Amino acid sequence: MAFDLDDTLFNATWLSNKARLGGLQKMIKLGLNVNIKDAFNILEKIVEKFGSNYSKHFDELLNYLQVNGQIKIDQYQIPKYIAAGVWGYHSVKEKYLKPFKDVITTLKKLKNEGLITAIFSDGLDIKQWEKILRLQIHSYLDYVFISEKLEYKKPDSKFFEFCLNKIGIDPSECIYIGDRLDKDILPAYKMEMIPILIHRKGKYDPNINKNENYLNIINQIPKSGYYEIYKLTEVIKIIKKLNN
Amino acid sequence: MAFDLDDTLFNATWLSNKARLGGLQKMIKLGLNVNIKDAFNILEKIVEKFGSNYSKHFDELLNYLQVNGQIKIDQYQIPKYIAAGVWGYHSVKEKYLKPFKDVITTLKKLKNEGLITAIFSDGLDIKQWEKILRLQIHSYLDYVFISEKLEYKKPDSKFFEFCLNKIGIDPSECIYIGDRLDKDILPAYKMEMIPILIHRKGKYDPNINKNENYLNIINQIPKSGYYEIYKLTEVIKIIKKLNN
Repeated sequence: MAFDLDDTLFNATWLSNKARLGGLQKMIKLGLNVNIKDAFNILEKIVEKFGSNYSKHFDELLNYLQVNGQIKIDQYQIPKYIAAGVWGYHSVKEKYLKPFKDVITTLKKLKNEGLITAIFSDGLDIKQWEKILRLQIHSYLDYVFISEKLEYKKPDSKFFEFCLNKIGIDPSECIYIGDRLDKDILPAYKMEMIPILIHRKGKYDPNINKNENYLNIINQIPKSGYYEIYKLTEVIKIIKKLNN
Repeated sequence: MAFDLDDTLFNATWLSNKARLGGLQKMIKLGLNVNIKDAFNILEKIVEKFGSNYSKHFDELLNYLQVNGQIKIDQYQIPKYIAAGVWGYHSVKEKYLKPFKDVITTLKKLKNEGLITAIFSDGLDIKQWEKILRLQIHSYLDYVFISEKLEYKKPDSKFFEFCLNKIGIDPSECIYIGDRLDKDILPAYKMEMIPILIHRKGKYDPNINKNENYLNIINQIPKSGYYEIYKLTEVIKIIKKLNN
């Protein structure tokens, strides 16, 4: 039984948005004269452009606001506002990083049933591992694979093959749960794993994300090609069904 | 009245050591099979070699232990231990980062007296600013200057000149307090500022640091060329004396 991490085992979309707002609040409290909603929207576009693992989102935000004449700050005061943003961002992340309520219960049950558990995740390996440790789920996991240092990542089937080889199981023996049609469900289906789509209200939840190209992916998978759940506890039933 | 930051306004040496031990403890708890004292000593040497602002001390530590055959860890498990180290390190830093007990009181008094207050610091500007914000001393400071983005840093007199020019005062009008003979007291003396050496038991406190070259710096400054204090509150008396 393998899991995606972000927006599958914890509320990644919600947490990032809350953390970004936390950063902006600290900046505004310190005197940055911007409307928080406007700044949040600009920040979202910056994250989209530079990727979520880029480390200078707040630098880019201030630069944008400066260039567009929305703020006027002495160059040597800029680091103060960036530091406030970083501080606010991390405070929120640390305080609110928690697994979804159904995660620990389910992982415990899976371990009691004697199943092998694993995480297959993209992202920066140290960053992903820090999340796993802070979420306190590592003791329930037999394997964790992060694609950063490999030559391939999701949705490349080679990444999934690498993970399955390391565990020593066939794709057909592996249930794989994720929240994304493109990077989780489609590749798992193509590889003949047993894919489960979990709805977590993250930004790639097909109930939330209304991008047509994204939603069209579902047409490449027959309805019988994957399971669909709203709570992780439902996997126990699916396993029982599969075992019969 | 200008201040150095690390080991002048907060316990930087003590905190870094505690944070490094915190990181090592988390790594060991996760299964890293090393003696904490040995690992700490190796880590100290790594920090010395790569500098305190290098972001991969724990990576280097594991690499060293691996190369020297002291541990044997699967390559893909390495990020787990690094993440544990980083987590432990930051948890301690965030929990124990506090100004010395005499700092807020003194800053308040200085502001009440109508004095201009400033920090002149080396280091990474965002990192230094984050410390200042977390220490909650920024509202008592009129100016903060970090040398990172400038072409000069301590002990270069140009850095001090830059700060004094920005404030608009002469060196002789500026009391400057720091813990280091080499980067604080000697340049402040040469520039004809009013230097105060504060003893904080940090790694550059002349009562702690027994490096001969370091201690010899004191011979370049006459005893009458600087003040020496053990508590920051003593500056109030010095100011009164100077005003008479």
